[in-house]
Amino acid sequence: MAAKQQKKNAFYAQSGGVTAVINASACGVIETARANKDKIGKVYAGRNGIIGALTEDLIDTSMDSAAAIKALRHTPSGAFGSCRFKLKSLEQNRREYERLIEVFEAHNIGYFFYNGGGDSADTCLKVSQLSQKMGYPIQAIHVPKTVDNDLPITDNCPGFGSVAKYIAVSTMEASFDVASMAKTSTKVFVLEVMGRHAGWIAAAGGMASSDDNPIPIVILFPEVPFDKDKFLAAVKQKVEKFGYCTVVVSEGVHWPDGKFLSDQGLKDAFGHAQLGGAAPVIANMVKDALDYKFHWGVADYLQRAARHIASKSDVEQAYAMGKAAVQLALKGENSVMPTVDRTSNKPYRWKVGVAPLNKVANVEKMMPKNFISKDGFGITNKCREYLEPLIKGEDYPPYDKNGLPKYIRLKNVGVPKKLPDFEL
Amino acid sequence: MAAKQQKKNAFYAQSGGVTAVINASACGVIETARANKDKIGKVYAGRNGIIGALTEDLIDTSMDSAAAIKALRHTPSGAFGSCRFKLKSLEQNRREYERLIEVFEAHNIGYFFYNGGGDSADTCLKVSQLSQKMGYPIQAIHVPKTVDNDLPITDNCPGFGSVAKYIAVSTMEASFDVASMAKTSTKVFVLEVMGRHAGWIAAAGGMASSDDNPIPIVILFPEVPFDKDKFLAAVKQKVEKFGYCTVVVSEGVHWPDGKFLSDQGLKDAFGHAQLGGAAPVIANMVKDALDYKFHWGVADYLQRAARHIASKSDVEQAYAMGKAAVQLALKGENSVMPTVDRTSNKPYRWKVGVAPLNKVANVEKMMPKNFISKDGFGITNKCREYLEPLIKGEDYPPYDKNGLPKYIRLKNVGVPKKLPDFEL
Repeated sequence: MAAKQQKKNAFYAQSGGVTAVINASACGVIETARANKDKIGKVYAGRNGIIGALTEDLIDTSMDSAAAIKALRHTPSGAFGSCRFKLKSLEQNRREYERLIEVFEAHNIGYFFYNGGGDSADTCLKVSQLSQKMGYPIQAIHVPKTVDNDLPITDNCPGFGSVAKYIAVSTMEASFDVASMAKTSTKVFVLEVMGRHAGWIAAAGGMASSDDNPIPIVILFPEVPFDKDKFLAAVKQKVEKFGYCTVVVSEGVHWPDGKFLSDQGLKDAFGHAQLGGAAPVIANMVKDALDYKFHWGVADYLQRAARHIASKSDVEQAYAMGKAAVQLALKGENSVMPTVDRTSNKPYRWKVGVAPLNKVANVEKMMPKNFISKDGFGITNKCREYLEPLIKGEDYPPYDKNGLPKYIRLKNVGVPKKLPDFEL
Repeated sequence: MAAKQQKKNAFYAQSGGVTAVINASACGVIETARANKDKIGKVYAGRNGIIGALTEDLIDTSMDSAAAIKALRHTPSGAFGSCRFKLKSLEQNRREYERLIEVFEAHNIGYFFYNGGGDSADTCLKVSQLSQKMGYPIQAIHVPKTVDNDLPITDNCPGFGSVAKYIAVSTMEASFDVASMAKTSTKVFVLEVMGRHAGWIAAAGGMASSDDNPIPIVILFPEVPFDKDKFLAAVKQKVEKFGYCTVVVSEGVHWPDGKFLSDQGLKDAFGHAQLGGAAPVIANMVKDALDYKFHWGVADYLQRAARHIASKSDVEQAYAMGKAAVQLALKGENSVMPTVDRTSNKPYRWKVGVAPLNKVANVEKMMPKNFISKDGFGITNKCREYLEPLIKGEDYPPYDKNGLPKYIRLKNVGVPKKLPDFEL
């Protein structure tokens, strides 16, 4: 019994906005834990992130077959449900930490794997301190994930490469389209992409253009305060030279005073405030000033869910991060995050590294200044060198006979509860 | 010399909104013409559709290699440029027809292949009457294309199947995403798709859900006058049952009085009218009435340009229509359009048919009533049976080492002009 007690179970949960490849990390965690059954018991997943731990809403992943777990690798979204929930500090809400310990103890959990971005790293860091601060032995490992690509230390964040590929491919395709139409119809296409604080995803739009295949693209970064006149001049110049222009606008683009472009005080016919996007604002602006016909699109969730065009290197790295997290736990590590360490650009080479969580949590990595071209509307070769390997390769999901991808839905069988209910 | 003169050249042009596979039809036309060099001379493409013919702006496709022409099969958009330009009737604008004959004569053109939708079929029909009405011997064949899927007689229109696949896959992916987020964040995702008059593309969103993998989807068709209360009740019921809901809204959705939902009299802070989409209107409506967190996307050009996820059957049929057009011309036909004739549903079988152009031009095929479910928010099994074969199979483009598709840009070398300029 004592020996059996020593083999601890693991907790795994997904946090924040989901991605095309966060389940590939889940797959890496679960498959690696299963390969180490002598050391790790069951993997319990939190239903809807840390909330699952607090409410003792645990999923017994062992009820799903090896084939089902394998299929996570090619399934977008968060298979166990995600959450937007940040633990307060121990001092502010001791009750939540005591509850976590209760749940972990009740289910013999000794490993905590948390899969998310900056906020989630903070949650993971707080959990990692349970051992030291409250005497409960836990090893907390953060598994990096975020389309925002803003975690420090790691070369990139799993999830980003696939969004970047989707945006690069879509920008290229839409640009080919508008180029065909420009003579008598649409001359400007505006695509809005994610990225409230950093322009990483917008930058990926710039990859659609290359020396071999130049495409007139104007990128609007959140890092560059919006200058209407300069922007309109840039669009006009491209349309005059190429006949058309594609604008990739980050949702976070704002005026010099910090106000978002999308927040333009729109009111409907009844005077109700309406939430719009940045793309229609930009499109209307082009129409009003230059009288070019336009179309606009907003990729929104399509971009981060687009597993059908995921980047191969992104899928591999997402899986590798999940696998490495378990290996780090088995080595006795706590309060760390595996990282992608780039060792060479051409050819692209990387290895798994490790970072202490207190250097990760609450640190935001912005786009380097030398990734944005001098005029503020494009990307530099340095940026291209960085992005290219991340969007390289395809990793197509299998398709069903009905023409749709075979994305898995797990059984997600609940673990019987042992504790009284807990109010969040 | 007389014998050589008998071998006529062909004119090919692209018209209307371009698609992911219209170039596959171009490929079918050019490759089949090249395979019949004993009967057909050069293929001249019109730069920007019929405008290229009127302005004598012809492209010599023989200047592009076999490999380049082959690559058209996997390249979206219109390689020669498209146009929105409808010929007036002979009675209304005889000058344009005389000009066409001048240009055709100057370049020894005896075959006219026009690749487009309903309006383009009308243009093609008018050109086909040149022989009879003006004594110029021409064989005009229409090559069907339109994402709207509204041409009569043919089972479907090349271009539609690929949009349908893109929308089905994207709806599935975004639905998986919102399902993951629903516990603490987004509960409703709204996706706006093309289709101003007919709901074919919106219907494709319904394919994301199946008996094996049920997804709560509410579809808003242009065929069904918008009923706000009924719609909100449908969304509420889905969210209460599944925890989340995806809304696929056609751009053509309108109120019972015919006014588009997207036309809501939006004014910005300065009182300027703003053109918005239907998706933000629907999303704001859900927020106001039900207080669910939402996200919305507008696929716009991304959907019709998405060659990266084209349907295999669509690509095959697009190519087959181009090939058949040339074969019909070689058989001496005029004023016809090749069609896709469905001969069996399960397994899906089809063959190439032929329709007289006067039965095609200016006839719009709407969605059959029995394709829309009784509540007006979904698709029937009859609709599924129709759509399923059209989105079946994948036909991936090759990718470059930089992670982007290898889409071809032709040289598009102009044919030396022989005539004076012509004012459009």
